[in-house]
Amino acid sequence: MTPEVGATVARLRREVAELHRELTRNGLVIWTAGNVSARVPGQDLMVIKPSGVRYEDLTPEAMVVTDLHGVLVEGDRSPSSDTAAHAYVYRHMPEVGGVVHTHSTYATAWAARAEPIPCVLTMIADEFGGDIPVGPFALIGDDTIGRGIVDTLRGSRSPAVLMAGHGPFTVGRGARDAVKAAVMLEDVARTVHISRQLGTPAELAPADVTSLFQRYQNVYGQERA
Amino acid sequence: MTPEVGATVARLRREVAELHRELTRNGLVIWTAGNVSARVPGQDLMVIKPSGVRYEDLTPEAMVVTDLHGVLVEGDRSPSSDTAAHAYVYRHMPEVGGVVHTHSTYATAWAARAEPIPCVLTMIADEFGGDIPVGPFALIGDDTIGRGIVDTLRGSRSPAVLMAGHGPFTVGRGARDAVKAAVMLEDVARTVHISRQLGTPAELAPADVTSLFQRYQNVYGQERA
Amino acid sequence: MTPEVGATVARLRREVAELHRELTRNGLVIWTAGNVSARVPGQDLMVIKPSGVRYEDLTPEAMVVTDLHGVLVEGDRSPSSDTAAHAYVYRHMPEVGGVVHTHSTYATAWAARAEPIPCVLTMIADEFGGDIPVGPFALIGDDTIGRGIVDTLRGSRSPAVLMAGHGPFTVGRGARDAVKAAVMLEDVARTVHISRQLGTPAELAPADVTSLFQRYQNVYGQERA
Amino acid sequence: MTPEVGATVARLRREVAELHRELTRNGLVIWTAGNVSARVPGQDLMVIKPSGVRYEDLTPEAMVVTDLHGVLVEGDRSPSSDTAAHAYVYRHMPEVGGVVHTHSTYATAWAARAEPIPCVLTMIADEFGGDIPVGPFALIGDDTIGRGIVDTLRGSRSPAVLMAGHGPFTVGRGARDAVKAAVMLEDVARTVHISRQLGTPAELAPADVTSLFQRYQNVYGQERA
Repeated sequence: MTPEVGATVARLRREVAELHRELTRNGLVIWTAGNVSARVPGQDLMVIKPSGVRYEDLTPEAMVVTDLHGVLVEGDRSPSSDTAAHAYVYRHMPEVGGVVHTHSTYATAWAARAEPIPCVLTMIADEFGGDIPVGPFALIGDDTIGRGIVDTLRGSRSPAVLMAGHGPFTVGRGARDAVKAAVMLEDVARTVHISRQLGTPAELAPADVTSLFQRYQNVYGQERA
Repeated sequence: MTPEVGATVARLRREVAELHRELTRNGLVIWTAGNVSARVPGQDLMVIKPSGVRYEDLTPEAMVVTDLHGVLVEGDRSPSSDTAAHAYVYRHMPEVGGVVHTHSTYATAWAARAEPIPCVLTMIADEFGGDIPVGPFALIGDDTIGRGIVDTLRGSRSPAVLMAGHGPFTVGRGARDAVKAAVMLEDVARTVHISRQLGTPAELAPADVTSLFQRYQNVYGQERA
Repeated sequence: MTPEVGATVARLRREVAELHRELTRNGLVIWTAGNVSARVPGQDLMVIKPSGVRYEDLTPEAMVVTDLHGVLVEGDRSPSSDTAAHAYVYRHMPEVGGVVHTHSTYATAWAARAEPIPCVLTMIADEFGGDIPVGPFALIGDDTIGRGIVDTLRGSRSPAVLMAGHGPFTVGRGARDAVKAAVMLEDVARTVHISRQLGTPAELAPADVTSLFQRYQNVYGQERA
Repeated sequence: MTPEVGATVARLRREVAELHRELTRNGLVIWTAGNVSARVPGQDLMVIKPSGVRYEDLTPEAMVVTDLHGVLVEGDRSPSSDTAAHAYVYRHMPEVGGVVHTHSTYATAWAARAEPIPCVLTMIADEFGGDIPVGPFALIGDDTIGRGIVDTLRGSRSPAVLMAGHGPFTVGRGARDAVKAAVMLEDVARTVHISRQLGTPAELAPADVTSLFQRYQNVYGQERA
């Protein structure tokens, strides 16, 4: 690594460590079951959570660096068991700079039924641009999960995908955007679930969804490629 | 601004900053998605949250001051994207000194179904004086949301309105009263939702509702015009 | 007051102030909507929360002392608006030394439907000795609420009553026991609600309920008169 | 006790005290209603929570040591009222080094209906290796609860059993593993409950369940005998 790349990696280690605290603060993860990664811009590298480490022990130094095939480049521990899925996303979606995986309760409840979250709230239109889609059931161990994520996200404006029988993955221009999407996802998954328990909320008109999405992405400067 | 107005604005900056902490403490908001404002008494001014700032960064200095058409008067950041709705309320409801907007889970779940919360608890009669009404679905960008809030609140004793497909707005004589209404709203929205999951709670008799409302408003000195 | 009574009152002010923190810690109350009182043993006096004070401001000094008709004896503020109900319980149930009132979510949801909580868990048999009963709907302002509490509790082994359309009251030999009952009540109200959402849990056999109740009350030394 | 055993007991007192904090941190227990124990390796001894002590008072010194019939060996207080069940498990399952009992909300809601949690998520396959089984309803006071736990766990790969009308017990190679299982159990009990409220999630194929279970147990080095 050049000194410049080393400095960038050091910054991303701090950022990714801090963002894991957002997962616990927002109630998205228990024990060690969730992970955040960030692409090292311009490099075939990413910073990701090590496997099986408790959130209170996730210091910047505890993070690991791998290449975009999940091979360890820097760090003492083995990378997250979900590293292959993160790496596949970075290899196939160059506009993505951050990936988050959780088993947050309500998003996972929709994923268990393999049911998309319908766009019935302005907040869903703003952040997700329509229904939040479902990806295929896939076993861990090869590129099946990564391919399911990428194929599903490419057919949608949503930064979130509900992997069937498993849980959500979210992406963003950077790791912070991906964490924001994970937080918003769980929030709308919960609200729509609760609303649906006592009736059927109306879906927003497609033109309104597009109008809200375009306005929100511009106002907040978060356009995605 | 005169020194007197400047001192009032300084006090309201502190109060509004502090009240945003009540939103997080009571679990009404995630990320940056909720806002509190206060009218500057006797002035065509209001103090409101800036756009897209995290709650932990909401110091008194971070708040912004706008006129009652949402034009920035004091502050470094652009005001909340909901400023137009707050401003409309202040222009058309002179008795209102505080406005709160959240996407709190249970209130928003009722709003997604465009269903009023029925008055089945003494606490609802006390604070809201009857059913909690639903306002129209409205897109952000002009006065449609503000008009929907005002038109709905004028037909009700309730300080809260559920904007369809969007979420709740609450008002009060001051910002603290509006925050209290937002907290109570989410609490009764949750309790009635849960009660309705397993049956149909009985609505209170209208005479009892009026009796409870009048007693509570006097005891707590919180009459609204 | 004699010095001995004064010392007892000082101790109860600390205990009652501390117990209000248990209400917030266990998520039983929002804003100012819940209260704890303790009888001053051997005196026609009780220590109770003042009206409309935030939980973070509930120091021992902030508590008030009233007689058992709710007349203020010591303290700067007016007593809780529920004082009449607490006082009625102390006048008519000499074995009771503590009373708690909340609007905790799940207990209130059962109260809104005026439906008793069935005894389907060993924990309910242990602490409540059977179904948790419902009391009548009653308006605030005279002894109707107090009478409803006492009449209902006298027909039951339960230290908790669900006042219809209002919320729960619990009693105990001391204020700590009444708070424990309020915490346990909300816990079982939630668990049974959730269990009932997907089916009908079986009620425990009456002989098992009695066996569990008697064992638990002896083991924990919490017999009630 | 030899000095070596004394040192092990001292270490386990600290570990068991610390693990009780995980129960509260993860929202699995209220008041005093849950307990963790650890076997003293190579001895007919265990370290367990004392009866009726609040979680904030559970220092290492407050823990008690009993033999594997629940007779007090070291400590000032009587052991947890669930000691007989823990002891029975240690006597009959030599591979178990830790036992946890809670009344966590969602697991207990399934237990109240005596309904197993179906294996509809990869996380359930990973940690529990299939459906999470139900044990018989049993009264406290003799070995009935312990026998129900052991008989049920022996017919399953799951480290968790839902005791009907009562609540969950979990086991592990050590106390930390048993606490992890209790945390994961409540998480999946909640997620599957919520998913089932709006439909029927598909069960995973048995071959996929076995594949996921074996991989997870090896990756995390947590094989159970």
